Amino acid sequence: MIKPPVTFEVVKRISGTLGRAGIIHTPHGDIETPAFVVVGTKGTVKSLKPEDMAEYVGNQVALANTYHLFLQPGADVIKEAGGLHKFSNWDLPTITDSGGFQVFSLGAAFGKGVTKFAKGETDDKTEKSELNVYSKKLAEEHGKLCVIDEEGVTFTSHIDGSMHRFTAERSIEIQHDIGADIIIAFDECTSPTADKAYQEEAMDRTHRWAKRSILAHKQNFEALKKQGLYGVVQGGRHLDLRQTSARTLADMDFDGFGIGGSFSKEDLGEAIQVVNEILPEDKPRHLLGIGEPMDIVEGVRLGCDTFDCVAPTRIARTGTIYERTNDGHKRINLMNSKYRRDFSKPDESCDCYVCQNYTKAYLAHLFHSREMLGAHLASLHNLYYIVNFTKRLREEILLA
Amino acid sequence: MIKPPVTFEVVKRISGTLGRAGIIHTPHGDIETPAFVVVGTKGTVKSLKPEDMAEYVGNQVALANTYHLFLQPGADVIKEAGGLHKFSNWDLPTITDSGGFQVFSLGAAFGKGVTKFAKGETDDKTEKSELNVYSKKLAEEHGKLCVIDEEGVTFTSHIDGSMHRFTAERSIEIQHDIGADIIIAFDECTSPTADKAYQEEAMDRTHRWAKRSILAHKQNFEALKKQGLYGVVQGGRHLDLRQTSARTLADMDFDGFGIGGSFSKEDLGEAIQVVNEILPEDKPRHLLGIGEPMDIVEGVRLGCDTFDCVAPTRIARTGTIYERTNDGHKRINLMNSKYRRDFSKPDESCDCYVCQNYTKAYLAHLFHSREMLGAHLASLHNLYYIVNFTKRLREEILLA
Repeated sequence: MIKPPVTFEVVKRISGTLGRAGIIHTPHGDIETPAFVVVGTKGTVKSLKPEDMAEYVGNQVALANTYHLFLQPGADVIKEAGGLHKFSNWDLPTITDSGGFQVFSLGAAFGKGVTKFAKGETDDKTEKSELNVYSKKLAEEHGKLCVIDEEGVTFTSHIDGSMHRFTAERSIEIQHDIGADIIIAFDECTSPTADKAYQEEAMDRTHRWAKRSILAHKQNFEALKKQGLYGVVQGGRHLDLRQTSARTLADMDFDGFGIGGSFSKEDLGEAIQVVNEILPEDKPRHLLGIGEPMDIVEGVRLGCDTFDCVAPTRIARTGTIYERTNDGHKRINLMNSKYRRDFSKPDESCDCYVCQNYTKAYLAHLFHSREMLGAHLASLHNLYYIVNFTKRLREEILLA
Repeated sequence: MIKPPVTFEVVKRISGTLGRAGIIHTPHGDIETPAFVVVGTKGTVKSLKPEDMAEYVGNQVALANTYHLFLQPGADVIKEAGGLHKFSNWDLPTITDSGGFQVFSLGAAFGKGVTKFAKGETDDKTEKSELNVYSKKLAEEHGKLCVIDEEGVTFTSHIDGSMHRFTAERSIEIQHDIGADIIIAFDECTSPTADKAYQEEAMDRTHRWAKRSILAHKQNFEALKKQGLYGVVQGGRHLDLRQTSARTLADMDFDGFGIGGSFSKEDLGEAIQVVNEILPEDKPRHLLGIGEPMDIVEGVRLGCDTFDCVAPTRIARTGTIYERTNDGHKRINLMNSKYRRDFSKPDESCDCYVCQNYTKAYLAHLFHSREMLGAHLASLHNLYYIVNFTKRLREEILLA
């Protein structure tokens, strides 16, 4: 039997809650949790080279997106380069998501929508890892960006409109080629507006894809030695579905779990709680796509170990930075004209490189001048802010 | 008498030529020459923080542009921040140009052109440091971007079309506010298409502005202690004018000299030679805006000490990098589809950080994905390439 490449140990629990501090062991090093996972969508954390992460941010792990890397440069290119770590010159633990979220959300984002088939309605002649002829025909006829069937999803590229197909097996194969330490089973990420019947149907399909993802992973002996596989809990806003999903996936042979789907602020806590009460304690839990400071606080208390979110770098590129307040956090936009002559630190309470060496006025100048360094420095601050905010939550658990 | 803040010593001469290795001493440290001066137009070397310069490029000096900083964020903002070094978090020797080149070239670049007055034709009632009413009226009537008179230049901002005026005194005052180690006397940079009569007229005016720049500098005791002033040799393609200009400026109390104007490849060598035969040997000479490898070789042989050029970062942003060839240098564009699967180093012969850690395929991916890191890594390589190419020329002189 192969020693699992990704394992988890709980170091300390927060008494009376689901929260814990732990360590995820991966082939590229340990991740001390709770931890914020920096997002490098296309194999680059926007504007940062790896030394910037190590010296100025201090993140322990980075996440790249399967969908984006599949389309550009192509998983085959990354494989030929020797995998994501070599290709991107990254030497830290890495995660790739399944591609599911982008397939569905970019479809929705482009205002076209998703065509769904109920179980049994699909074309039985579907072939693995090939374009599903029926889906393709539908997509062409209807101009849909994303067509789902039992087997997988046919979608058009947001870059050039070319047609592609992901199945559970194909997603795992692509993630094997990319070679991150932690890979994620292919899942369907539903719209929050979908009705409960569809949420359940999609969840059941995600569970069947989860099983097939495990099988596909176990068939690749080389990958099995160096990549851990997470399953993704779905179920939308419905706590009973969330519980069903957690129970179903907990019984499968995953190295960890993602909690996926879109949440409203009110639903988030309860949904996490019922899921983490069920998921096995000795496996790490990643809250997918959530990363606002107060959400992380709640996620940690409710037993999540890792978090990822594009917000820190995305808002940085528009001149927006995090700033501490007496009772929490706020965002300020440096393009506001009042900062043109503000020679105070970007965030007075922050000890990051940017706040120690630059003023709001300089950052404002960079943004007004459309200088790339503005986005870079704001990204360094925002990432440091959220990464170290999460580190402090760990320290608090250890000291409690 | 104040000890000059910027001094020069010749360390070794290339026998039989005008070339030499030397050291420029400045308040922010020494510049070992020949040296390439990295350009940070708006108080930022595009995409690089100072640590990137120090760790990955190794440049000893950076140049910012008076015209750009005057328009955004404003010299007053930089002064209030404590000067350019504090504002930009730069701790190395710095230069600001006079603003003359941008005033004239941005005017020309915008396809409008420059209105010239012959000596004596100007409005005698001109007031220093104020918009010249006559010029302003003309500019408004004719929509010119740049109107020259004896006193100075009235021009419209390339950002918002607002009207401004530089005189010799105003340029020096702005450069005092910015606070670079080396500042440059206000000069008129003529179009290469101007006839000889106009070249001479403009040169004479530049000489009068040079005198007034020195006077303006000497009136600021604080600045005089910490900023050195260079005069700019003009004269276009005409060797006799170049000689006149060099002789005239050599007699003035400058700490060093710039050689300005636009050159054609064929004219460059001769123009430099006749100038440097005249300029005093104990003062540093900066060849303004020239920085292609083979031009630097020629400039060094003919007695220039420092060089600046925006090309390394400008071409980097479009995916173009320098590469050594058996007999020289070439540029390659990483957007070319043949590099998508090229896992060789960006430049096989280069020992920079980028060439040691990344492949052409990764850089190509970054450029195809419009990722900022592409421009950053290409800039690091190009700047390292040209900075260290120039350093090797120094080493060769010292070893000869």
